[in-house]
Amino acid sequence: MNTIGIGVIGAGRIGKIHADNLLRMHGVAVAAIADPFAGEALAAWAAERGIARVTADASELLTDPAIEAVIICSPTDTHVPLIVEAAANGKAIFCEKPVSMSVEGTREALRAVAAAGVSLQIGFNRRFDHNFRRVKEIVEEGRVGEPHLIKITSRDPSPPPIAYVKVSGGLFMDMAIHDFDIARFLSGSEVEEVFTQGAVLVDPSIGEAGDIDTAITTLKFASGALGVIDNSRKAVYGYDQRVEVFGSGGSVAIANDYPNTAVVSGPDAITRDKPLHFFLERYTEAYRDEMRQFVDSVRLGQPVPVSGQDGLQAELIALAAKRSLETGRPVKLAELAEAGLAAEA
Amino acid sequence: MNTIGIGVIGAGRIGKIHADNLLRMHGVAVAAIADPFAGEALAAWAAERGIARVTADASELLTDPAIEAVIICSPTDTHVPLIVEAAANGKAIFCEKPVSMSVEGTREALRAVAAAGVSLQIGFNRRFDHNFRRVKEIVEEGRVGEPHLIKITSRDPSPPPIAYVKVSGGLFMDMAIHDFDIARFLSGSEVEEVFTQGAVLVDPSIGEAGDIDTAITTLKFASGALGVIDNSRKAVYGYDQRVEVFGSGGSVAIANDYPNTAVVSGPDAITRDKPLHFFLERYTEAYRDEMRQFVDSVRLGQPVPVSGQDGLQAELIALAAKRSLETGRPVKLAELAEAGLAAEA
Amino acid sequence: MNTIGIGVIGAGRIGKIHADNLLRMHGVAVAAIADPFAGEALAAWAAERGIARVTADASELLTDPAIEAVIICSPTDTHVPLIVEAAANGKAIFCEKPVSMSVEGTREALRAVAAAGVSLQIGFNRRFDHNFRRVKEIVEEGRVGEPHLIKITSRDPSPPPIAYVKVSGGLFMDMAIHDFDIARFLSGSEVEEVFTQGAVLVDPSIGEAGDIDTAITTLKFASGALGVIDNSRKAVYGYDQRVEVFGSGGSVAIANDYPNTAVVSGPDAITRDKPLHFFLERYTEAYRDEMRQFVDSVRLGQPVPVSGQDGLQAELIALAAKRSLETGRPVKLAELAEAGLAAEA
Amino acid sequence: MNTIGIGVIGAGRIGKIHADNLLRMHGVAVAAIADPFAGEALAAWAAERGIARVTADASELLTDPAIEAVIICSPTDTHVPLIVEAAANGKAIFCEKPVSMSVEGTREALRAVAAAGVSLQIGFNRRFDHNFRRVKEIVEEGRVGEPHLIKITSRDPSPPPIAYVKVSGGLFMDMAIHDFDIARFLSGSEVEEVFTQGAVLVDPSIGEAGDIDTAITTLKFASGALGVIDNSRKAVYGYDQRVEVFGSGGSVAIANDYPNTAVVSGPDAITRDKPLHFFLERYTEAYRDEMRQFVDSVRLGQPVPVSGQDGLQAELIALAAKRSLETGRPVKLAELAEAGLAAEA
Repeated sequence: MNTIGIGVIGAGRIGKIHADNLLRMHGVAVAAIADPFAGEALAAWAAERGIARVTADASELLTDPAIEAVIICSPTDTHVPLIVEAAANGKAIFCEKPVSMSVEGTREALRAVAAAGVSLQIGFNRRFDHNFRRVKEIVEEGRVGEPHLIKITSRDPSPPPIAYVKVSGGLFMDMAIHDFDIARFLSGSEVEEVFTQGAVLVDPSIGEAGDIDTAITTLKFASGALGVIDNSRKAVYGYDQRVEVFGSGGSVAIANDYPNTAVVSGPDAITRDKPLHFFLERYTEAYRDEMRQFVDSVRLGQPVPVSGQDGLQAELIALAAKRSLETGRPVKLAELAEAGLAAEA
Repeated sequence: MNTIGIGVIGAGRIGKIHADNLLRMHGVAVAAIADPFAGEALAAWAAERGIARVTADASELLTDPAIEAVIICSPTDTHVPLIVEAAANGKAIFCEKPVSMSVEGTREALRAVAAAGVSLQIGFNRRFDHNFRRVKEIVEEGRVGEPHLIKITSRDPSPPPIAYVKVSGGLFMDMAIHDFDIARFLSGSEVEEVFTQGAVLVDPSIGEAGDIDTAITTLKFASGALGVIDNSRKAVYGYDQRVEVFGSGGSVAIANDYPNTAVVSGPDAITRDKPLHFFLERYTEAYRDEMRQFVDSVRLGQPVPVSGQDGLQAELIALAAKRSLETGRPVKLAELAEAGLAAEA
Repeated sequence: MNTIGIGVIGAGRIGKIHADNLLRMHGVAVAAIADPFAGEALAAWAAERGIARVTADASELLTDPAIEAVIICSPTDTHVPLIVEAAANGKAIFCEKPVSMSVEGTREALRAVAAAGVSLQIGFNRRFDHNFRRVKEIVEEGRVGEPHLIKITSRDPSPPPIAYVKVSGGLFMDMAIHDFDIARFLSGSEVEEVFTQGAVLVDPSIGEAGDIDTAITTLKFASGALGVIDNSRKAVYGYDQRVEVFGSGGSVAIANDYPNTAVVSGPDAITRDKPLHFFLERYTEAYRDEMRQFVDSVRLGQPVPVSGQDGLQAELIALAAKRSLETGRPVKLAELAEAGLAAEA
Repeated sequence: MNTIGIGVIGAGRIGKIHADNLLRMHGVAVAAIADPFAGEALAAWAAERGIARVTADASELLTDPAIEAVIICSPTDTHVPLIVEAAANGKAIFCEKPVSMSVEGTREALRAVAAAGVSLQIGFNRRFDHNFRRVKEIVEEGRVGEPHLIKITSRDPSPPPIAYVKVSGGLFMDMAIHDFDIARFLSGSEVEEVFTQGAVLVDPSIGEAGDIDTAITTLKFASGALGVIDNSRKAVYGYDQRVEVFGSGGSVAIANDYPNTAVVSGPDAITRDKPLHFFLERYTEAYRDEMRQFVDSVRLGQPVPVSGQDGLQAELIALAAKRSLETGRPVKLAELAEAGLAAEA
């Protein structure tokens, strides 16, 4: 087994998680990590792991011939230029979602990737989660028949800081984009129309920042199936990530994951601990599998499990949801181009 | 305890259930049952229960001074004239939902009831169910804080016959009307706006009859909360009636009821029996409590637990849902009057 | 359908429940109720229900030719003479458990019943419970294969008054006797050997009264299967009645019943209400079915679902358990006779 | 952080798992692996992981000054001499259970460890499991009050090969020993008396090999609490590892872990996947934590979380259980010495 050299761009929380997951694999070398704020702490962190090079300059890493693949975990506004440069240098690319805040940017990145003939995997980690994956299998086995309704619950334990909310692209592009991807993934069909009801119920300052914190989004799929997603930025009991696919032959539903199965029967009530707190706890294994499959696709020259096109489609749904919120009516994805919001290349 | 004389109008399935539940109570006499198709079978059924009078003529019953209250379970198109006549005769009235297929009809019935100073209880049985009632209590105790999202799942085990579908008033007036009532009941707030996505996925002949069999309906409440209901005419695993209220302080959710708690662990899977099959099984106790509370309100001269106004509001939501389906956009209840669909009296 | 006249002996809590359940049936007349403490309250209670006769003298009832069957719910020490007298008068008999505190007494009652050719049903109500019955069906369908282990959890919400403890016959005869019957019922095999570890952990005054309040009892069945029962007189969370049958082909387990399915997710924990509090709540329906099947067996001249022999066997197991506790070693049922404790008639 | 050199003795399944878990930690070097059957496959396996030395001679490893701690995963009959030699060489020791098949052997090992002043941790991995650990915490927080009953279910998915059964030490020493340890761990009290009912129900050849495959074991603790363990060598639905602690203030119970939370509602039943298949799947994380805590105790010079004394006590309970099976009566641990079975050193 040849060793694959990998570079990580962006040394934030998720960049470090990906690096650690890569370090556990046999046949993988984390050759370098790049972050504009690289300093002593990052150097120490890298040294402890035997990562040889730490740099503030991503280009150094992107032009290193020993590096075959890159993991892009830097802020969203850097994704497109980094993808373009990585593609030009022939690197296999893993990029966190969303690819870009603008559809045109994402299309540009996808064109660069296609032109260079490199692979691009988007960081929709939930597809690798044991629960979502099992739902997908059960749907594919036909155990629920033809899907009629897809229901997704997606709530965070607490909202991000307002400073982040302002640059996040909004609830749909930042948070619900994962749900849009899961809706496509589980239904096996494209979303054609979106209607959303949004509200500011959690924190007025989110509204002042121009965003919403609560939403119900209805989806209409090409297959005729219907979907609905409910989002909240604040569930006091923790991360709430559930899905149900209901069809002509039955339904499949997943519950949250819990830190343990202990149930206490006391004089007042029956109680158990809250679900796993947030995505780092809930999707620990999913992040591992995501990296494993990316590395496998690089090693074997096979298609990535989540493509750039998957990234683009989820962004288009987010755009339609936002437009529905603004216009107060259902929005077809087909009309985005007409509205000048998502010109076809 | 004085005995209250009660007459039952309509000897179909639900009329008989109400009669049997009344017969179990102390201080209640089921004095008569009226049905235009009264024949030998009904006479035998009544005799077995000691119900003295069986008649084809509801007016006989409505003018009987020994009868203090009537239970109207006849077809919907008979409700308004029966309520008007019952009110004119000073009877306390229980009427199955919906009061009428037209808002004007319902308003007429409500005016007659108000003019006569009698009481009118509408048959929203789910409010008496142990699960829905517990959710209501928990919300009222403040254990979920301010409600943000109300989610209702409401699926039948199989569609009614096409002949019934054609006269049913459609999925919203016939089936989802219960969910609209529960949404108001649990949120403690009025619905202001409705958007619905409907589809024919279960049976094309339902579509040919001018109805839908699958729907996702989004609600916006006066309180600012959002709601969503998903309906299907066919869940192969049986009646699926669940609700979740999510708020600033947590959430409360109910699951279905099951015939037993037995779980089998076998070589292939872990299995349990399907939920209670349909409303007769699921809401057996709710029907009893519904009658008990109606009788109590008559006996004690207290307000009924579900008023004519509750019946009207649910019908207005159904009307808005239907109009949303027809127009493909969200519909405000306030605009129904303007559209000439629900003139204020 | 001929009306069956029934008399109830003993107007305590369970006697009244049986009477009310009988009153709901068609084709049944509760002709009389007998209780040595019959007074105004009981007379009023009977009048409200249309029970014509109330008497302090059970013999009046037992010799009444209009009475075809009797329900014996009086204290245990009256059971045998009442059964003997009822049998002599040709009545069908339902008797609460245990038949008697002494095996000889029970044998005497059984001989009288056999001699008179009347039927005798013992009040092991759990056999009629929807959960236990479903376990039985699943075992009989072969879905767990050959039973290897039967595990029964049986805990009360709180101990009875000490005055009752003193005359109760002890934890095994009073409380665990139901579990012994369920063990036989579900295993389909006779218990051959019993070992018990008992303790006084709930309340020292129970120990002072010569009883225990906590026990683990191991059973060995003729089939080779093993069983275990754990008993406690006090579960602060309420009545705990569960069972598991594990076998060569899998297992089946039942959980407790709950008043509702509502689950609250809050900032500290996930909670639900406690299980149904005690036997009156948990076995409401089981008591109804128990009476229904007794009446059916009388009407159709068919065998009763729980025989006097079932009552005797459970008493023998209780006796063996008590002896095991006293001797500190496993006790075979076969040795009870040798020990002069349970002479074969 | 200094790097701790560790040697692994025994390259079977569990030895490799421990090695892999150690390899993931920072500040740990797996310096060598010893196995009498070391060959090319093991060499390749070690090379892939960067383990420098592979040897057939454990002594080589035990005398290596670069090795500070050893993990003993070789067959049980090698444990005592290896522990003695490791202790003589001043190594910190982790040893799989049981320490030895004879109490005298275990005592010898413990004496050697004490004389050398080294630490010895026994491989009771369940203590590190998220579920068992949570039960322990809840009990220690007093949420169940004083423990009255400890109930342990412990069933394997399928029996080991007969060749292994013959040298395994029997069901109690090989399998139930984990349960005996958990009983002590959760009750916080020593077992004083043991009674067991055993049977051969799974496979007659297990009986022919002199062992049993099914057992119910009753425990009496010094605290007065009672315990019960049920064991089976074959649960067709997979590994079944549950526990309940019931006390004066309530109870805590854990269920099995599942590969996912997906529940399928179909036309015939509600189904979910079986629990995690066996110990490797169920206790994956527990094995990691076990190694982490061993390494931490070595690094910090702190007591190990599971001591040699814990190993000895569990062996004594196993011995008492075996004797109870042979004699058909309850056996006190105190009488083992008198019987010459477990002489105090």
